[in-house]
Amino acid sequence: MNNFRFHIPTELIFGKDAHQNVGKEVRKHTSKKILFVRLAKSSLERIGIYDDIVKSLNEHGVEYVELDGIVPNPRLSKVREGVEICRREGIEFILAVGGGSVVDTSKAIAVASCVDCDYWDIVENKELAIERALGLGTIITIPATGTEMNTSTVITRDEDNLKRGRPTIHPTFSILNPELAASLPKSRVAQSVVDMLAHVMERYFTNTPGVDLTDRMMEGVMKTIVRLGSKFYHEGYDYDTVSQLMYAATVAHNFSLCVGRQNDFATHNIGHELSGEYDLSHGESLSVIYPAWMRYTRDHNPARMAQFFVNVFGVENNFLDVHDTIDRGISALEQFYTSLNMPVRISQTNIVDCDIEKMAVKASEGGKRTLGFYVTLGHDDFVKIYKLAL
Amino acid sequence: MNNFRFHIPTELIFGKDAHQNVGKEVRKHTSKKILFVRLAKSSLERIGIYDDIVKSLNEHGVEYVELDGIVPNPRLSKVREGVEICRREGIEFILAVGGGSVVDTSKAIAVASCVDCDYWDIVENKELAIERALGLGTIITIPATGTEMNTSTVITRDEDNLKRGRPTIHPTFSILNPELAASLPKSRVAQSVVDMLAHVMERYFTNTPGVDLTDRMMEGVMKTIVRLGSKFYHEGYDYDTVSQLMYAATVAHNFSLCVGRQNDFATHNIGHELSGEYDLSHGESLSVIYPAWMRYTRDHNPARMAQFFVNVFGVENNFLDVHDTIDRGISALEQFYTSLNMPVRISQTNIVDCDIEKMAVKASEGGKRTLGFYVTLGHDDFVKIYKLAL
Repeated sequence: MNNFRFHIPTELIFGKDAHQNVGKEVRKHTSKKILFVRLAKSSLERIGIYDDIVKSLNEHGVEYVELDGIVPNPRLSKVREGVEICRREGIEFILAVGGGSVVDTSKAIAVASCVDCDYWDIVENKELAIERALGLGTIITIPATGTEMNTSTVITRDEDNLKRGRPTIHPTFSILNPELAASLPKSRVAQSVVDMLAHVMERYFTNTPGVDLTDRMMEGVMKTIVRLGSKFYHEGYDYDTVSQLMYAATVAHNFSLCVGRQNDFATHNIGHELSGEYDLSHGESLSVIYPAWMRYTRDHNPARMAQFFVNVFGVENNFLDVHDTIDRGISALEQFYTSLNMPVRISQTNIVDCDIEKMAVKASEGGKRTLGFYVTLGHDDFVKIYKLAL
Repeated sequence: MNNFRFHIPTELIFGKDAHQNVGKEVRKHTSKKILFVRLAKSSLERIGIYDDIVKSLNEHGVEYVELDGIVPNPRLSKVREGVEICRREGIEFILAVGGGSVVDTSKAIAVASCVDCDYWDIVENKELAIERALGLGTIITIPATGTEMNTSTVITRDEDNLKRGRPTIHPTFSILNPELAASLPKSRVAQSVVDMLAHVMERYFTNTPGVDLTDRMMEGVMKTIVRLGSKFYHEGYDYDTVSQLMYAATVAHNFSLCVGRQNDFATHNIGHELSGEYDLSHGESLSVIYPAWMRYTRDHNPARMAQFFVNVFGVENNFLDVHDTIDRGISALEQFYTSLNMPVRISQTNIVDCDIEKMAVKASEGGKRTLGFYVTLGHDDFVKIYKLAL
């Protein structure tokens, strides 16, 4: 087990009707006007919370400026727009209502409003310590990214579709009401399930020895995501199912499961090029890349990969032939994705004329960048993995 | 799943040599003289950290007043002594170095130093909100109680040995260096393992529906505690084993595993009377009471109890006879305790002339108090459970 520091200052407010007191929560942290970053008004009205939120803000005398129009794989230009408002209006606190795109945009605004440079300078200078930021409260409408309780922030630069993650700030508070996910379209459910499962998988594949405790905790979380994710997708919303998925999404990515162990995260980053270049959803990029990554790295530590499939997917262990266990395991993973109507090959997506070399060059930043710690991969590996995923 | 709020402001600093920078960590939170509450100097010298700590405090110019002499099942009189020092010296921050007794004493001092009343008034008035407290840093020498990352505080009143828990404050930071547990005597290892396992068990037995996610996470933690606890006890210290146990002790009791579900905690409280009245160690009180509590409550939800034994202790499930599964499960639990040389009956302890009625009256506060939420128990139940434990 490695040395670590662990600190999550975010307060989680979880449950039925939890969003209805948002004005009171905001007031604990600022007395000024706030920036209210959100999904389209029509989306929040469909979910049924726009009026509730505005009412609670008004009741507590919270004035706000609204910002919407955030797209999936959210854009740097929108961050810049938000920063300009915050500076102009002297804003100290942001309320973000939506999923990962809205919250990540808000994190970037919160940080970039307090520095002299552009947000992309922060992305490019990973050594730059973030010393000051605006406060941030969130109301999460989709259980998926885990952004509500971590510092992870992923923004795409408009001009060249370069999608890059950068740790920024923890939200001050996050409100999670599982009821808000009741009307989530099936396709979004599937993408969310794939994403939250992948967040745990990225941590599970590690070379750090002596991590049985977090192995067992992760297996418990992943088993539950697989079972309840499937239930939500096939049988529709019920409170107990979705509340557990919502908390699973949070713990999957709040770093409590990966203390003291090295993570991998190559798959996420290899997938980012599919999203950035072809606007594939984040979930689809993962369901396409993970099976390919597994076939490519299967010989690195076959015992760990077999353990994953046996303990998470209930694949019968072939004690005498670990490769047989892995074969059946990769099939089980693909069947799970397919059962959610998620693609497991690029050919099953809308992408035509997939430019593998271009993506490999971008992912490797012209051959300079490697990805992953379980198996460290570079440009030529990316080419092979994209090809396995065709 | 129930509604919940979850907020752990404690920063965890975990790993080899982690205590050597304690002066720097303290300085982040106070510029004044601190109260240094600790195990006996000779104990810290045996562990090999007294000089390190003093050196680091001196290097960062941290002046301190020392307080020691804290006994297991720590006493109210010592809390009062600490409060007097803090008030006299204008202290704003406490550094606690030791196990649960030292930290709980420090939490109580931190709170009682900021109010006009006695600490026991706070214990007796559970409605009293704690609005202000001194800051608290800890260095944990024994992985067990989880007090390093929760608000739990257990103090015993000297005059009548009344042992009572009360939520107070989270430590500001906690330093966990698994190496400090290298020389822990076998008997303390056993007590610690029983205690941390019990902290998860108290949360596992619940009536809240829709909690599969935390069930699976807890099973993972408990399986690991059983396996690695046994390894530490029988094979002695190795870093990877003890580091995982140390983090297991923390998550077992930092409330991350029991979000959205009702806990039980009857066993802890029934056991407290054995510790308070006969000075039995906390771990021994649990290994004696848990099997009795299980035999007494086994018919409440046999499926859940069978699930516990099958998923945690690997007991073979008898699908056709759940009671057979439970019988073999209780035996497996008792065998585990016995393998650690822990008592599973009062007759195996040093207690002679056990006054069951007196303990039942104390536990029920003269018949007024019930304990537990999985099965709510009163005076007459306590008598029966103590008798089953004889």
